[in-house]
This record gives sequence, structure tokens and C-alpha cells, in this order.
Amino acid sequence: MDESRIDRQFDFIREIDKEKLIQRQTYLNNAVRKENDAEHAWHAAIMTVLLSEYANENIDVLKTVTMLLIHDIVEIDAGDTYAYDKEAAATQSERENKAAERIFGLLPADQGETLKSLWKEFERGESREAKFAHTIDNIQPTMLNAATDGKAWAEHGIKLSQILERNKNTADGSQSLWDYTKNNFIMPNLEKGRIKDE
Amino acid sequence: MDESRIDRQFDFIREIDKEKLIQRQTYLNNAVRKENDAEHAWHAAIMTVLLSEYANENIDVLKTVTMLLIHDIVEIDAGDTYAYDKEAAATQSERENKAAERIFGLLPADQGETLKSLWKEFERGESREAKFAHTIDNIQPTMLNAATDGKAWAEHGIKLSQILERNKNTADGSQSLWDYTKNNFIMPNLEKGRIKDE
Repeated sequence: MDESRIDRQFDFIREIDKEKLIQRQTYLNNAVRKENDAEHAWHAAIMTVLLSEYANENIDVLKTVTMLLIHDIVEIDAGDTYAYDKEAAATQSERENKAAERIFGLLPADQGETLKSLWKEFERGESREAKFAHTIDNIQPTMLNAATDGKAWAEHGIKLSQILERNKNTADGSQSLWDYTKNNFIMPNLEKGRIKDE
Repeated sequence: MDESRIDRQFDFIREIDKEKLIQRQTYLNNAVRKENDAEHAWHAAIMTVLLSEYANENIDVLKTVTMLLIHDIVEIDAGDTYAYDKEAAATQSERENKAAERIFGLLPADQGETLKSLWKEFERGESREAKFAHTIDNIQPTMLNAATDGKAWAEHGIKLSQILERNKNTADGSQSLWDYTKNNFIMPNLEKGRIKDE
């Protein structure tokens, strides 16, 4: 066994433990607290296994699951950028690229390059797996927001137009999951006034 | 789209959100708090992707990752049974089987059966994927215990013999990962007195 290889793998595995401390803006189902990036990634990975049948195009499930497991690792350095924070969004890409270099760089070169390129593929959002991963990444918090009676939307005064803009590519991965999300998670909260109409 | 099928899938997806509230006995890397089942499963899934090269036998990585993503879902009803709690262990299997029936039963029948049988395969620990999943499931907390200077071991007064008994099958999935774990995570903590010698 190559001791330096396995040491580097465990260096990375220990480093990403920090993702468990990165809080998101989404409340858990029971609304007692907000979730963190690791919990979100776990949830999204299981959703991918269960919902891949709705993908617009056939996807490689392991590739998509891996993409979602690692998609927020850069936030260990770059922080979570809230979906509706325009100021933070302006510097997001630069901060995240720098983070990817450092964190994936902890791994042996072959694995570091593989994960970094998978993360970049996710960011570009062009491959069928990246499109579906974005669909799941967007639907997971929308589902939790709906399950908490729109708590996070109401707290931030989110408008329907912001949600639709944020989700402008969600149907690219799965038209049927986006339709379901709109009809079951978003529109009922607009009707109840938890999402603002203009 | 079959509305009742997708409704059942989302019922399950919402239900398993509760796994984020099930606390384990392992401290995070920085020892500020203990981790929960969802965080543990996320960490274990990434470890599987990165460390599958050390499996004693070739494994199906997606199957093993899925196994680890869902392996603790039964604890939503059955609770976390601490590795060194003999009293709780006596009723663990009955409690967990009942939980599997209810929780996987929320899914459409085909997916519910698939996940339940994957969970049972993990529990039996006989297939190459189940063996490797147990290796990772055991190594992940051992690594975190070592990273926190043996905090959880010291708090519970754990003896080396208990750790070796708990890990009696860890090498079945990967001899080299077990050797690494013993040499790098366990033995240094025995020498420092964080793990009790008899």
C-alpha cells in the first residue's frame, strides 16, 4: 500500500468534515433548525437514486450521486451563498474556484483532478448528469420550504419571480419533477401568501 | 406521470429528513458537537467513492454507496444503538426490522422492496458490498475519534478489547483499510491512554 496516497485520501476525508458546520437557509422538515451542507448533500444523493426515472435523458446515477455528494465542498472555504443574495453571488465563482484548488488538491493528483472536474461539470450545468443534479439541488430545499409552510420564504420575503428566476433551468434535468415541484410546493405557498406575488 | 407514485416517493423523502436529528456518539473533527446519522452517511458515501480501490474484492460502487446512504434510516424509529451498549443491542434487531417495514413501506412497492432488501443485505454483511460498507461504517467514526484525540473513547472508558471485538469483521471488506486504521487511529490512542488497556 502506498502510505502517502492513503494519507492524502484521509487528509481530504478529515478536511471535508467541516461541511457539517456550514449552515444553509433551509429549515428541516420540522422547522426546529436549519440544515447544513452535508445533510443537504445526503438528502440530494438519496433523491437522485429514487427519482432518476424522471430525468429527461438517461443519466449515469453513480456519477450524478457523486456530483451531489461533493457539490458543496467548496463552501468549506467560500461559505454558503444564499440563493437570493445578489451581492455574494458576484464574487461566488472566484471564491469557489480558489476553494476547489485547495480542497480537491489535498487528494492524490488523479482523484483530485477527477473530483475537481466533476465539480466543474456540475457548475457548468451542461451535461445530462449536471442538469439533473441541479434539478435535485433546487427541488430539495423547495420541498423542505413547502414542508415548513414556507417558513424560509416568508422570513426572507421571497417573491414568486425570484423563485422562478432561480429555477429557470430546473426543468432542463427533469420536466416532470419541475412540474410537480411547481404545482405541489410553490403554487400552494403563493396562494397562502407565504411567497409574495408582485 | 403516476401522481400516486411520485407522491409516495416524496412522502419517503420527507420522512427521512428525521435522520438529520438522530445523534451519534461520535464527535465531529473539531469536537464542538456530535454528528448525526445523515452527516455520517454522507461522509461514509464519499469515503466509499474514494477508497473502493482498497476493497478485498471488486465492488459495485453505486450499490455500496446506496447501501451506506440508507443504512441508518431504520434508526428514525429504532434510535441509534451505541456500539458499546449491550442492553440496547439485545432488542436492536427487532426494533430495526419493524422500522424497515414502516419506513421503506412508504415508497412505491418496487422501490420499497429494493431498499429494504439492500438494507437487509447490509445487515447480513455477507456480500462483498455489504462487507465493504461495514468496513467504511466502522472506520469513519474511528477516524473521527482519533481526530478528536480519542474524546468519545475516553468519555465512555472504552477498552481496546471492545474496539477489537466491534471491528472483528472490519478487515473482511478491506484488509489494508483495517491495517491502516489500527496503526494510525487506534494504537496511538492506546499508547496515549485514551483507549484503556486491560
